[in-house]
Amino acid sequence: MKATISLFFSFFLFLTFSVSSQNSGNYTLVIHGGAGNIAKANLPADKIVEFEAKLTEVLKHGDSILKAGGTSLDAVESCVRMMENSPLFNAGKGAVFNADGKNELDAAIMDGKTGLAGAVAGVKTIRNPITAARAVMEKSNHVMLSGIGAETFAAEQGLEIVSPEYFFTQLRWDAYLKAKANADSMDNMDKKHGTVGCVAVDKYGNLAAATSTGGMTLKKYGRVGDTPVIGAGTYADNNTCAVSATGHGEFFIRNVVAYDIAAIMKYKGSTLAEAANEVVMIKLKNQGGIGGIIAVDKNGNIAMPFNTSGMFRGSFGFDSLCFYC
Amino acid sequence: MKATISLFFSFFLFLTFSVSSQNSGNYTLVIHGGAGNIAKANLPADKIVEFEAKLTEVLKHGDSILKAGGTSLDAVESCVRMMENSPLFNAGKGAVFNADGKNELDAAIMDGKTGLAGAVAGVKTIRNPITAARAVMEKSNHVMLSGIGAETFAAEQGLEIVSPEYFFTQLRWDAYLKAKANADSMDNMDKKHGTVGCVAVDKYGNLAAATSTGGMTLKKYGRVGDTPVIGAGTYADNNTCAVSATGHGEFFIRNVVAYDIAAIMKYKGSTLAEAANEVVMIKLKNQGGIGGIIAVDKNGNIAMPFNTSGMFRGSFGFDSLCFYC
Repeated sequence: MKATISLFFSFFLFLTFSVSSQNSGNYTLVIHGGAGNIAKANLPADKIVEFEAKLTEVLKHGDSILKAGGTSLDAVESCVRMMENSPLFNAGKGAVFNADGKNELDAAIMDGKTGLAGAVAGVKTIRNPITAARAVMEKSNHVMLSGIGAETFAAEQGLEIVSPEYFFTQLRWDAYLKAKANADSMDNMDKKHGTVGCVAVDKYGNLAAATSTGGMTLKKYGRVGDTPVIGAGTYADNNTCAVSATGHGEFFIRNVVAYDIAAIMKYKGSTLAEAANEVVMIKLKNQGGIGGIIAVDKNGNIAMPFNTSGMFRGSFGFDSLCFYC
Repeated sequence: MKATISLFFSFFLFLTFSVSSQNSGNYTLVIHGGAGNIAKANLPADKIVEFEAKLTEVLKHGDSILKAGGTSLDAVESCVRMMENSPLFNAGKGAVFNADGKNELDAAIMDGKTGLAGAVAGVKTIRNPITAARAVMEKSNHVMLSGIGAETFAAEQGLEIVSPEYFFTQLRWDAYLKAKANADSMDNMDKKHGTVGCVAVDKYGNLAAATSTGGMTLKKYGRVGDTPVIGAGTYADNNTCAVSATGHGEFFIRNVVAYDIAAIMKYKGSTLAEAANEVVMIKLKNQGGIGGIIAVDKNGNIAMPFNTSGMFRGSFGFDSLCFYC
């Protein structure tokens, strides 16, 4: 199979992208780099080139894993790691600063084959939170570990621990100072969501989802968003779909967004595209819950609806793949 | 309306209790004090009397609120507070000790009328975590706050902050020492779950759910269970049901238990009893996910399935109430 790689960097409001194809031993992978007020007018041309180059690199990396017979679990973890290691996204290295001027990270992963899941919340010293989330899933009896406890666990598992300063980037620091100066009008908090995520189906028909984030700029009080909440920002089940979300986390938690898409497929018999559309473009939109999701089902169908002005995203899949955008 | 108060302290394996009635401006409230290996053989007679007396007191308290026209939100918070203030349950004052010999508390509340929710995770100094969860819901823009950040928020809201020693009870300390001595065989961790919870529908037809816990004895690494995870241990929506769970939290998170019951009602058209049964007695049981839930719908129907040997629980409702047990 020659993979078709497609990148989206479009700015149409309320537009749902969906792809239909049939899985016949092939594989599909979708990534996102956050939804929000992402418009070309807001970004310099060289920044757009940087984003497109990184997303393409991540997609090619995912393709190489799945092409070689790797699992969707390996692929989604590895692709999210790459985005965590890039300063471009609000996850890992590029995380935003909280109200105390610290970087506080959340991540989750779920294996659609086994139904197992792992998550970390509020960690400050784990270089790759997504790998810690996977360790929680595979090496502990738990699903969600938080704060210093999660960091201790990650260290015991031999994961790379870094100084909190590792996560410093001038761009995010400047944004933090600017946001702090305008703290009374916190609008800026809600307009950009650079969370990253990846969903995939592998040659064996197994699904997986992974999501990682630095949360909201100026977040306070140990706020936990939807990313590490299984069922809200991250969910995978071979029988339905794998979902990774990005957006205003509180709305995604209250609406149990990721699992709701699976539930609509399972109990109503809707297609992935119908279910994703119902949740993101109707339910969330009606509530003012801004954001988007990426999702894939076992047949390689994908959905990438978002109700914001833009969402960084890209995918590859079968030869028969065609895009509507 | 003269409320009929009923208490259950039974030991039948795999038995579902359900109640059918019609709501006509009346109200219903259900509480639980944990599911697990709760058998008369395990508890001295005077302990059973204590539990029954406390559960009765809580139910009468809830009844007085709802009878006077109070909201389900006020009732579930207040009833859970009473259980948090009692050393009998693994929540608030009676919380178990974690691996470090500390008490680390989680709680969540959800308002079925508005769809708003609040939760705290890993707090050590808030006397009533359920009241902090409600403050998160009503006084912040967030759903979930964790650790010291959540404690700071609670203090700023004027909630009662206590020394961590407030949560010490000799009984739990002895259990901690015993568990620690047998840490290699951690079986004991999974057999008792004293989480408390309350669900209610008020005279106005509004639903609410509240859950509070000290988690697992000897829990490590900042483990967060299902209680503060909206959709897993706690969920409420006027259109479907209000649910509070107790049991092996990791299974409840992975299966998005509380919301799944609502989703089955919403998308499959099942009754509350059918949906609760499907999730607790089939899905969870097949996976070895031990525990139970309490739930109520807008018509005052209640369900209290559990797949353990026992679950402390009680309810009151309409004159027409009848129990099958």
